[in-house]
Amino acid sequence: MSKSIFYHAGCPVCISAEHDIVNLIGEDNVKIVHLGEDRSQIKNAEIAGVQSVPALLTSNGNVLHINFGASMADVKG
Amino acid sequence: MSKSIFYHAGCPVCISAEHDIVNLIGEDNVKIVHLGEDRSQIKNAEIAGVQSVPALLTSNGNVLHINFGASMADVKG
Repeated sequence: MSKSIFYHAGCPVCISAEHDIVNLIGEDNVKIVHLGEDRSQIKNAEIAGVQSVPALLTSNGNVLHINFGASMADVKG
Repeated sequence: MSKSIFYHAGCPVCISAEHDIVNLIGEDNVKIVHLGEDRSQIKNAEIAGVQSVPALLTSNGNVLHINFGASMADVKG
């Protein structure tokens, strides 16, 4: 199985969700991308369908938006 | 590890998310609760902190709200 990608932006909700996701699916199965620190990944995230963070892009291309997170506009702003 | 609980209400977004979650964490590690069919569970879900569905209640008590789902008010309505 290829890795899922967990997109976040460093907010407390994101960090909490990151820990939960890593615990649930295992850190070997998920790549963590911090969009605040690696802004070059924002475009890729948007193309993949990420509308808010935190979000989990599964290996089959689905996006699970988690919690009532920050909008992509907030991440860019 | 005790099981996580995936709450949903049968909407297309819920079913898609359910498949993703089961694929990610394994069906042995998650209990699926359909709040539309098992309305007695709505109160438990709310007490656990579920504000919208689909949502994943992790074994450590955190609630991951997934996608832009239906509000609990909609599930009750």
